[in-house]
Amino acid sequence: MAKVTGTDVTVVDMGVAADLSEVARAGKIIDKKISLGTANMAEGPAMSREQAVQTIEVGIQVANDLADSVDIFGTGDMGIANTTPSTAIVAVLTGESVANVTGRGTGIDDQQLNNKTAVIEKALALNQPDASDALDVRAKVGGFEIGGIAGLILAAAAQHKPVVVDGFISTAGALIAHALAPDSADYIIAAHRSQEQGHRAMHSHLGKKPLLDLNMRLGEGTGAALAMSLIEASGRLLSDVATFEEAHVSEAE
Amino acid sequence: MAKVTGTDVTVVDMGVAADLSEVARAGKIIDKKISLGTANMAEGPAMSREQAVQTIEVGIQVANDLADSVDIFGTGDMGIANTTPSTAIVAVLTGESVANVTGRGTGIDDQQLNNKTAVIEKALALNQPDASDALDVRAKVGGFEIGGIAGLILAAAAQHKPVVVDGFISTAGALIAHALAPDSADYIIAAHRSQEQGHRAMHSHLGKKPLLDLNMRLGEGTGAALAMSLIEASGRLLSDVATFEEAHVSEAE
Repeated sequence: MAKVTGTDVTVVDMGVAADLSEVARAGKIIDKKISLGTANMAEGPAMSREQAVQTIEVGIQVANDLADSVDIFGTGDMGIANTTPSTAIVAVLTGESVANVTGRGTGIDDQQLNNKTAVIEKALALNQPDASDALDVRAKVGGFEIGGIAGLILAAAAQHKPVVVDGFISTAGALIAHALAPDSADYIIAAHRSQEQGHRAMHSHLGKKPLLDLNMRLGEGTGAALAMSLIEASGRLLSDVATFEEAHVSEAE
Repeated sequence: MAKVTGTDVTVVDMGVAADLSEVARAGKIIDKKISLGTANMAEGPAMSREQAVQTIEVGIQVANDLADSVDIFGTGDMGIANTTPSTAIVAVLTGESVANVTGRGTGIDDQQLNNKTAVIEKALALNQPDASDALDVRAKVGGFEIGGIAGLILAAAAQHKPVVVDGFISTAGALIAHALAPDSADYIIAAHRSQEQGHRAMHSHLGKKPLLDLNMRLGEGTGAALAMSLIEASGRLLSDVATFEEAHVSEAE
């Protein structure tokens, strides 16, 4: 999709639970591993507050390193089970009940859905994340990649550049960025509405209407890549197309 | 928008009420003028049945002339007041009341809307188009361009190529194509849902869900051009991306 839309892809390892140093040395990914996976949020905080800050700083640094070559950022994620922390984040930050915002991720059945809901409720009861403190939420029930995405959004906003946010996990990152600096949401363009329930609650919290609604549940930046071409076309309409006045349309009989 | 999405544009004069022969000689448009505008459908048939056939043949010929260089067609239109015949067509072919499917076109006020509705009702009462005879509908309450679009859709289907249909007027052409040859609808991809009321009735009649819903009311092929990039990306997903099986994902522990 990036190829089709002429989008450059940068892959950052925020904490894959495997040694990817060879892939990083080959230049295929940027190694920003915080650790080999987070801790289990159902048994305690997913990470320390220091690590939560570190994830956001990584996102900022990646965005700043790319600043000279990027006019518009997009976010994506890849991870197993990362709708679970994202759901915890949306529940805490929007005040929706866990049951209302918990979806089927990659396609779990009813029993697994009940289990997922119960795990999230347990993690929230155990960790008591403070909704008024985004870093506390990040640390206690977030994944590393969500912090990286939040940091990238903050940096994009600081650079006055739009950032196309796609998918459920990325939008969890956007909620964190918004909680830390509400004005950053002005730079967010919502790309795609995921099939994942809870995504609507996120968009409504951020005041965003996604450009696309194609029954996809992928995330991974795919919707961001697709939306890039729509956004580029919008920009070209503003810059390249004559107005009625310029084209003397209103002067015609 | 065509530039952004790498789409080629072919402009066909189906019946502009002005001499465009110089523009045609300069190669900027294809001259297929049926006549200098249709007749007034509020006073009689918009055109003869022979002219209605001719408009469809023009669309077929244009599509066939382009066959070697086109993998996917898109439709668009430009014309003043052409939501009016399109509304008449949707009312006849879907059985909806005129009031239900008449919209504000380029932005008319309440009084003009009432007038537009009354004109369409008058044209239908006067001409009595036969809903079971698409050519009769075409001739009595259609514009030339709508026939051209219908013909292009029929030819695209005959070439087994998708045709991206955008906007209210183009979709009126799709209704005609569908009425003449229902299977042609299988080749239609609905690009964009217009703000024009009545467009939903068209899509529902054709069994289509538009890819985009961006609060635009332009038509003119803009949504078709935008949708091209989404469709190309879908095709590339099918052809270029490894399946889980090919990538041995399901064999991982």
